Amino acid sequence: MSKRPTIAITSGEPAGIGPEISIRAAWELRADVKSILIGDAAFLAMTAAAINPAIRLSALSLQAVRNSGIPDFPRDQIAVIDCPLAAHVVPGKLDAQNGRYVLQTLDIAIDGAQQGWFDAIVTAPLQKSTINDAGVPFTGHTEYLAEKTATPQVVMMLATNATPQPLRVALATTHLALKDVATAITTDSLTGILDILHADLQNKFGIAQPRILVTGLNPHAGEGGYLGREEIEVITPVLQAAQARGFDVRGPYPADTLFQQKYLEDADCVLAMYHDQGLPVLKYASFGLGVNITLGLPLIRTSVDHGTALDLAAAGLGHADHGSMLEAMRIAAQMAAATRSSPL
Amino acid sequence: MSKRPTIAITSGEPAGIGPEISIRAAWELRADVKSILIGDAAFLAMTAAAINPAIRLSALSLQAVRNSGIPDFPRDQIAVIDCPLAAHVVPGKLDAQNGRYVLQTLDIAIDGAQQGWFDAIVTAPLQKSTINDAGVPFTGHTEYLAEKTATPQVVMMLATNATPQPLRVALATTHLALKDVATAITTDSLTGILDILHADLQNKFGIAQPRILVTGLNPHAGEGGYLGREEIEVITPVLQAAQARGFDVRGPYPADTLFQQKYLEDADCVLAMYHDQGLPVLKYASFGLGVNITLGLPLIRTSVDHGTALDLAAAGLGHADHGSMLEAMRIAAQMAAATRSSPL
Repeated sequence: MSKRPTIAITSGEPAGIGPEISIRAAWELRADVKSILIGDAAFLAMTAAAINPAIRLSALSLQAVRNSGIPDFPRDQIAVIDCPLAAHVVPGKLDAQNGRYVLQTLDIAIDGAQQGWFDAIVTAPLQKSTINDAGVPFTGHTEYLAEKTATPQVVMMLATNATPQPLRVALATTHLALKDVATAITTDSLTGILDILHADLQNKFGIAQPRILVTGLNPHAGEGGYLGREEIEVITPVLQAAQARGFDVRGPYPADTLFQQKYLEDADCVLAMYHDQGLPVLKYASFGLGVNITLGLPLIRTSVDHGTALDLAAAGLGHADHGSMLEAMRIAAQMAAATRSSPL
Repeated sequence: MSKRPTIAITSGEPAGIGPEISIRAAWELRADVKSILIGDAAFLAMTAAAINPAIRLSALSLQAVRNSGIPDFPRDQIAVIDCPLAAHVVPGKLDAQNGRYVLQTLDIAIDGAQQGWFDAIVTAPLQKSTINDAGVPFTGHTEYLAEKTATPQVVMMLATNATPQPLRVALATTHLALKDVATAITTDSLTGILDILHADLQNKFGIAQPRILVTGLNPHAGEGGYLGREEIEVITPVLQAAQARGFDVRGPYPADTLFQQKYLEDADCVLAMYHDQGLPVLKYASFGLGVNITLGLPLIRTSVDHGTALDLAAAGLGHADHGSMLEAMRIAAQMAAATRSSPL
């Protein structure tokens, strides 16, 4: 692409591997992505220098960006919007004093995306407990992004390009105890999820007529009602209504049949009914290169599919693998390009 | 191996692909396996001749086998224990008149395995509805085998050798509506399943100290109780008790983390809590070469991981893929060899 997309990267929990993988990935992709890290400029500069003295990191003040937007900077640099830490960082050691810092980096990213400074946001992992320990109720990145952008419903998707063709798995429910899954899948929720999935596959992935395969809730997709009735009472009617709106959605199919290459190669996305029905295959197939994508937001947001890895951070620089971060940035860049060329 | 194992193959629903894939697989493996098909001798001979006139099929009468056991026969032959059909077979067309025939082939296999005629049983797919339509209550191969052998608890495992190392996934629950899964996992049921799994990995797979990875029931294995308490209240105590008995069992782990090559390569088997948590990965990874194994029985039983494929049968010979049947026979042969050399 001729124009590099501008991507904000929140560097996440400062005591985790987020700062290191953010810097490594941004530097590696500098020819293709105009990366704006968000975090403590001095801390990130020190980290970058320790990773590789050749890395050129230029600090921007938030106020200057507010006044004049993101400046041009050379292709052999990455930039940081400075957001000061509250306390000194010890790698691997959580400190609630820096809980609000992590949220501030997110706020800058969200605000900037809505201002048009950024084409996409990529988030490094944070530690929920640190934010909660700082006295802020917080359930996760995704929920925070939804709340801050007043988005009533979002959809979690995991995707990978490590497979013969892109594999994308969206979830109808996410972080729910298994016993609560069946009742959480309602006509309204599933309809809303399909609408978001279909719209974002069109607008953010540039797929004109997205082909969506949908799993059943029960084993063998309920086997005609013998193994549960949710397919008959909820899922099939929702799919039929979506087909009537012109969606290319097919199912409900048994999850263990659907996730085979011969079926996946004719689809753009799988909608699984719950977390452990959809994600084990994706993570198995992606070899650590899975990317978490939040659909339904008025902005593009991708993320790594792993946590803060405090043990690796404590071991010092050079232990973390920034593969998932690279993929998160590449997919964000693809989505930014598809969004720019979308007719909508 | 010097001694070929003797394997009984029930040819399954006669209108499906079972007869064809049974004959093809038995013929292909004749150098390594002494195959005894069980089915209508005339029907199977006609099918074999249509597949390949070179196939040499010799019929045995059940009465003769009862009197004198399985005779020796040349390595370039496969044998059939004759079990007469009730009605003419039209490929692709189910006929309840042949429902009891399918059960009779199973009865011969089970009886023969218990008499010591066979080292293992491999079952081609049957159609439950045909048996039910014949007036016989029937819920599945596995349940039938358990009942006929007076086995109080069995464990379903799927396995494949199509992966970098053998991948084996056993299930703590099988064909249950999703909403009923959480309550079906109890201390007693899970303990019994672990005992069977551990014993059969030792005795039927020849693994001296089986390494078993166990998933949680809930996403993220319950995340310390935030996403469900079954891990804390049921699964962890059962695993600790098993560890105290000397089992190498580890978990409960998040299912989406566990199914990654770096963890699987240090394990002999995964125990998943339910059908769609464990089988999608296995079927994705096995490329149609998955094998269904019933553990806990006083005999070795493997099976294909697909159905009767009536549409393919109706299209005529040459459309079905006998890959899963070959794998089912190979794994049965491996298990027979491991059982023979087991010290127990």
